[in-house]
Amino acid sequence: MTDFEHLSAELNDLLCVLNLLNWDARTQMPPGGSVTRAQQAATLSRLAQEKLLSPAFERAARDALQARPGDHAAGQALAAAAALRRVPAPLTGALAALKGEAQDAWASAKARSDFGAFAPYLERMVQLSRDLAGALGYEDHPYDALLNLYEPGLTTAQLTPLFDRLRAHHVPLLRAIGQRPEPRSDFLTRAYPVAEQRAFSLGLAQAFGYDLSRGRLDESAHPFEISFTRQDVRITTRYQESFLPGALFGTLHETGHALYEQGVSPELTRTALASDLLGLYAVGGASFGTHESQSRLWENRVGRAQAFWTRHYPALRAHFPEQLADVTADEFYRAVNRVRPTLIRVEADELTYDLHIMLRVHLETRLISGDLSVRDLPDAWNARMKTDLGLDVPDDARGVLQDIHWSTGYFGSFPTYTVGNVMAAQFYQAAQAALPDLDADLAAGTYAPLRAWLTEQIYRHGRTFTPHELLVRVTGQGLDETPYLTYLTDKFSTLYGLG
Amino acid sequence: MTDFEHLSAELNDLLCVLNLLNWDARTQMPPGGSVTRAQQAATLSRLAQEKLLSPAFERAARDALQARPGDHAAGQALAAAAALRRVPAPLTGALAALKGEAQDAWASAKARSDFGAFAPYLERMVQLSRDLAGALGYEDHPYDALLNLYEPGLTTAQLTPLFDRLRAHHVPLLRAIGQRPEPRSDFLTRAYPVAEQRAFSLGLAQAFGYDLSRGRLDESAHPFEISFTRQDVRITTRYQESFLPGALFGTLHETGHALYEQGVSPELTRTALASDLLGLYAVGGASFGTHESQSRLWENRVGRAQAFWTRHYPALRAHFPEQLADVTADEFYRAVNRVRPTLIRVEADELTYDLHIMLRVHLETRLISGDLSVRDLPDAWNARMKTDLGLDVPDDARGVLQDIHWSTGYFGSFPTYTVGNVMAAQFYQAAQAALPDLDADLAAGTYAPLRAWLTEQIYRHGRTFTPHELLVRVTGQGLDETPYLTYLTDKFSTLYGLG
Repeated sequence: MTDFEHLSAELNDLLCVLNLLNWDARTQMPPGGSVTRAQQAATLSRLAQEKLLSPAFERAARDALQARPGDHAAGQALAAAAALRRVPAPLTGALAALKGEAQDAWASAKARSDFGAFAPYLERMVQLSRDLAGALGYEDHPYDALLNLYEPGLTTAQLTPLFDRLRAHHVPLLRAIGQRPEPRSDFLTRAYPVAEQRAFSLGLAQAFGYDLSRGRLDESAHPFEISFTRQDVRITTRYQESFLPGALFGTLHETGHALYEQGVSPELTRTALASDLLGLYAVGGASFGTHESQSRLWENRVGRAQAFWTRHYPALRAHFPEQLADVTADEFYRAVNRVRPTLIRVEADELTYDLHIMLRVHLETRLISGDLSVRDLPDAWNARMKTDLGLDVPDDARGVLQDIHWSTGYFGSFPTYTVGNVMAAQFYQAAQAALPDLDADLAAGTYAPLRAWLTEQIYRHGRTFTPHELLVRVTGQGLDETPYLTYLTDKFSTLYGLG
Repeated sequence: MTDFEHLSAELNDLLCVLNLLNWDARTQMPPGGSVTRAQQAATLSRLAQEKLLSPAFERAARDALQARPGDHAAGQALAAAAALRRVPAPLTGALAALKGEAQDAWASAKARSDFGAFAPYLERMVQLSRDLAGALGYEDHPYDALLNLYEPGLTTAQLTPLFDRLRAHHVPLLRAIGQRPEPRSDFLTRAYPVAEQRAFSLGLAQAFGYDLSRGRLDESAHPFEISFTRQDVRITTRYQESFLPGALFGTLHETGHALYEQGVSPELTRTALASDLLGLYAVGGASFGTHESQSRLWENRVGRAQAFWTRHYPALRAHFPEQLADVTADEFYRAVNRVRPTLIRVEADELTYDLHIMLRVHLETRLISGDLSVRDLPDAWNARMKTDLGLDVPDDARGVLQDIHWSTGYFGSFPTYTVGNVMAAQFYQAAQAALPDLDADLAAGTYAPLRAWLTEQIYRHGRTFTPHELLVRVTGQGLDETPYLTYLTDKFSTLYGLG
């Protein structure tokens, strides 16, 4: 082991332990532990930052770069350290302090649907985030600096026209769907016992290739995937007895994330370092968007396909014989692909989800650039919700106050959800070209060839390549929405019998 | 916060996180995570040691001592740092390396009942432990240095005559019991569904005062209690469907440990530092023996008393109406207090458990002093098992190879189990004197007064006093076996109708 490898391994250990503190807090910890747990996490976080910023680490990383010019891990570590150094300590402190206050203010404002009570905190958070962007540095748009914390290399100049094209596609498609009769979906809200939901979902996760000797499934208020090296990759889901698709597709989604982390090459164990605006963390994948591309690919491209339900519906019906007695496989497939605008992002379907994301990105880029004031935010939200989704927002709790993200200062992370959808379609198209038997395999419930191909092409590389490098290696080109739009048009035209 | 308080808090955070890594590994972690988890624990452990040994920490502790002469926390921290510094790095490294190898060798030797295969590792472990004792320093007996890692201030010169007196009491009492008819206990091995065992045991733990808003109960191969500050104190147990007392009394035992940790004064949060021969750890109580005194007090003095089962047996029978249909409360009480020599320590009853412990302590003190060679250990074990428990040892797997302790180098920890029993009786006698209504309370299933008294007298002080100081404060004298022997004689004379 070189000095750099040794120090990186230590740093990665600390970040994995931070992940464990987080997982435990969200799935196991008794409520009384929250204050001391936060102190423990703060101490570990500080130690990790000290390590990254230490002269010994910088020297070791420079030696590694000299020994192997272009060494990706060393380059990334130096860049992360440089970025951390550029942010003045008072700003980091102010952001951390505001985060706690703003979250509390947001929660109480949301409970009372009172945007005015949250506005001063959001104004301050926008200001500090602009300061952060300035400290981090950017060439063109201050939003770039924040976006790159989650999606290295992507620019607002690239993102804005991409999202314009998506929107120009999605809105008319949604309107056309709205003219067609809704598929039947009454049966999705019958009573589905949680233990059976869990058994069926976990069975599918294992069929996809999720390795339970290196993972486990728990419950949490919001589903997530988290890893402590590739050897221990855990997922959670949330069960609602009276809504079957929630835990089911939630589990498939997190399984996609988990397959990525479990598929990272063993040689990369203890090397992964990543950072965002509030610190460092350990994650095996190339970026948030790349990660999301895999959760979406397994959830939507595999798990919401007609062939999938032709194959697995009999097993589902065996778990729930009474609840699904009067439902055919085709009816089930149509129900879980139903498109219906909703006010709430986390309840949105595959098509309208992007519209929720693009609404937020449109607004937050303008908040950060200064083209939109916090005062005008609710009206802007409500206006776009009307034009894009056709919905009137009855109150801010179900509108601009619905997400926690802005109260935590996570400006720049929303785009990665939709970027992930776009990438997923590109990767899936490449998989189709490379695997002539893919359709037959999926129809037979055989997922190993697809997983092996994705592992070889994407997962094993971990963070070795940037998202753009990875896309070009695997698909021959950079971010391109064509395959995604073709997929959506084909799928929903068939489902809804559109011209 | 002074510098010392701040640095202690950071160090305590690291130690609590190490405890969490340990808890997770033993209750939640998928098997694939073990290697990387060990690396994470090693990194945290090293960071904690570095912090303790840093000049900044020493300076801060000395400043704290100067500002408040006699400050216990600063004194303990300096003593722990000084002890760590006295152990040469090559010795620490050799011990850590041997520990892994010796554990593997022990596990495989035990599986084949082949002491010869383990003997070379044990010889080396004894030698390194003697080296460690020499490095740590001692006045009289090398075993003192090891014993004091678990029980500060206790000496072999004190322990040996104490254990001689206990043995002189226990062996004849056991022999007398052996002449009497055995109580009925057939019903203990009927089928008791685990979910009901859990519900009943946890109900008792809560009745004792275990606060689930700051705790939780899980399963593990070996029951344990572990804490991450007083705000998060977790216990585990092991369920066997066909042996009711295992999980039941195991839960009460760990609850006793948990009440101690949960009862530490809030001002002491993030101050607790402790060390043993292999590193540092966070624990709230004064010593291993003091801790054990509380697990034993709640398990045996409270939980195995006749009044306890008079009170709780109807509820137990409501959980298991069929299994206990033909059993009276008195029969149940007698069954769970049955005395019957067994080869295996962890299956031993209240009386013979001490004989198992004292056998080990007798042998390990002589191993460390050099008066007994590893080669002669099995014969010495078997001879004493015959004289004390009247049992012939059929093979080393059920004899000298049964415990993991010696393979890990934990010489000096065994005495604390029996010392805990002795202390428990002293503390309980003081509680009886201080609480005139104690018997009535316990008969009524009212545990708050006893818990409050123990909290006031013992728990809240955390590690502020040495075990001896604590004993003297609470009972007026040092370690004294009289109350323990009186209790055992009274209890078993009545149960078995002895002279």
